[in-house]
Amino acid sequence: MDGPKRNPELRKDTVNNRWVIFSPARSRRPSDFKSKSNPNPNSNNQSECPFCIGHEHECAPEIFRVPSDSTSEWKIRVIQNLYPALSRDLQQLTESASSQDLSLSGFGFHDVVIESPVHSVHLPHLSPVQISQVLLAYKTRILQLLSYHSIKYVQVFKNHGASAGASMSHSHSQMIALPVIPPTVSARMDSMKEHFDQTGKCSLCEIQLDQLQIYESKYFVSIAPFASTSPFELWIIPRNHCSHFHELNEEQAVDLGRSLKFVLQKMSLQLNNPPYNYMIHSSPLQANQSQLPYCHWFLQIVPQLSTIGGFEMGSGCYINPVFPEDAAKILKELNIHD
Amino acid sequence: MDGPKRNPELRKDTVNNRWVIFSPARSRRPSDFKSKSNPNPNSNNQSECPFCIGHEHECAPEIFRVPSDSTSEWKIRVIQNLYPALSRDLQQLTESASSQDLSLSGFGFHDVVIESPVHSVHLPHLSPVQISQVLLAYKTRILQLLSYHSIKYVQVFKNHGASAGASMSHSHSQMIALPVIPPTVSARMDSMKEHFDQTGKCSLCEIQLDQLQIYESKYFVSIAPFASTSPFELWIIPRNHCSHFHELNEEQAVDLGRSLKFVLQKMSLQLNNPPYNYMIHSSPLQANQSQLPYCHWFLQIVPQLSTIGGFEMGSGCYINPVFPEDAAKILKELNIHD
Repeated sequence: MDGPKRNPELRKDTVNNRWVIFSPARSRRPSDFKSKSNPNPNSNNQSECPFCIGHEHECAPEIFRVPSDSTSEWKIRVIQNLYPALSRDLQQLTESASSQDLSLSGFGFHDVVIESPVHSVHLPHLSPVQISQVLLAYKTRILQLLSYHSIKYVQVFKNHGASAGASMSHSHSQMIALPVIPPTVSARMDSMKEHFDQTGKCSLCEIQLDQLQIYESKYFVSIAPFASTSPFELWIIPRNHCSHFHELNEEQAVDLGRSLKFVLQKMSLQLNNPPYNYMIHSSPLQANQSQLPYCHWFLQIVPQLSTIGGFEMGSGCYINPVFPEDAAKILKELNIHD
Repeated sequence: MDGPKRNPELRKDTVNNRWVIFSPARSRRPSDFKSKSNPNPNSNNQSECPFCIGHEHECAPEIFRVPSDSTSEWKIRVIQNLYPALSRDLQQLTESASSQDLSLSGFGFHDVVIESPVHSVHLPHLSPVQISQVLLAYKTRILQLLSYHSIKYVQVFKNHGASAGASMSHSHSQMIALPVIPPTVSARMDSMKEHFDQTGKCSLCEIQLDQLQIYESKYFVSIAPFASTSPFELWIIPRNHCSHFHELNEEQAVDLGRSLKFVLQKMSLQLNNPPYNYMIHSSPLQANQSQLPYCHWFLQIVPQLSTIGGFEMGSGCYINPVFPEDAAKILKELNIHD
């Protein structure tokens, strides 16, 4: 990777409408970019972990489990968060928030998806079919939440490792159902609409794939995005236009499970099992017919390899020392049998 | 602070146009909210610190020093960053970036302001007059950068402590001059314009001050903002409408220095010397006449007391366990002689 010295470059992320500074001068060699964090948060072990099988009574109430029959052992549990950010017990709003409202009741849902009954099993250890069951559990829960008319958006996310925000080391993801459309979702919708109005095309349908592609399967493509905010950031994008994550069918879920397993394994091996977050970027639940042509959901994976500081907080611009072309090359050159 | 159990609440930040979730269920008692981080990044000490007096030759070139005469010892040095995010050596753009441009040359400036010649002296240890000289050094540098027509915005910021992004423990701040208007600045301008169009008033001129005020001086007011994204976040706002930080005069600079010293001391004492960032939120350098009535600069201080995770990254919504009314009360009740 020791090519000629490269100059810094600003690149525009047309999906999120933001500029990213690529600054190779601030980098070690991209191939040296390995995590130094210990991804295991706290010291909770199996004997004291409430997410482990046999400790169900230590958790907040269960919403459902997979498989749903109570005669066999569970593989996945969807439960309430014991310390929810929003409260399902508050009265839900009878009307939508107007632009004049400065404060709203904190009605909403904050759920946890326990991805395995076994403490030491992490998501990429599961088979594509088992991962598909986790993805379909997200879908099932979103479909339940659709019946609450005041819920506008469901943010599905996973924190792996203490420095990525995880307080429990047992593999899990979270879902927060919000009574407002969050800021990044509005900004993304506006930005994708602008691109659509200018070109007649969905920005994620026509995203440049050449050198930035890492893996392609029947229904999904995994890329290092042209204007990644973080080193080795990855997006997994449905190849066919689709607005909502919860339209995922079983065959697509297995295919996405395979892609997710593959890129998480590559990331773990090349970057020394870094803490990471993934986020599913879907569309507002009640997106209208006119928004659907430019709304295209995707999954974003961000390994936590750097600290953000006052510049990023103040400006919303990110400084990325690793060009995505280099990240894609490093992740591609590692052989994994899929 | 053990009052009746409070429900979660969503609050809208009308300056930045974003919702914040206040979630007391996720909190320890607000008064227990102390930092556990060691704010000293790395282990660099005086003998190997290039920012210390006598080590000037180890730094990137100096831009200016205070006092400017070379016969006395320096108090403040403004220097180039040795690992700049942007390059001052690239050709600057002859035209502004159009909305079609997806990539730009990384022309810009990345400077460092060394706030004291002495390694162990941190900003709040300085006198109000000495802090005013740091603030006026920012101003002097911004006025120099104004002569580059392609520079659109200068982000002034300070990272204190490794987990706040500081790689050097010697007290310093940074300035990045950008050839684009960064995303949060555009969003803030749009949001403040919307408020102005609806009400005819600048949102920072009429910000609610009652219970959220921590300190008031002749020219500035320090508040815990109504929709703070982080626990104990503080804003220092000019009391009279003013669009650009670089309009600051010497008397105002001393007054701001006093306010900054006062609130940083309170924060350090009450929260166990936490890592923190501060950011100056000014207006685009070439803001036009019609924007000035709603553009009002301010300084934001964010102690780093929590980790952000996938929810915040995905949605742009923040979960704050401490209501600003409680943060203001805790910071106010501590006596410091100013």
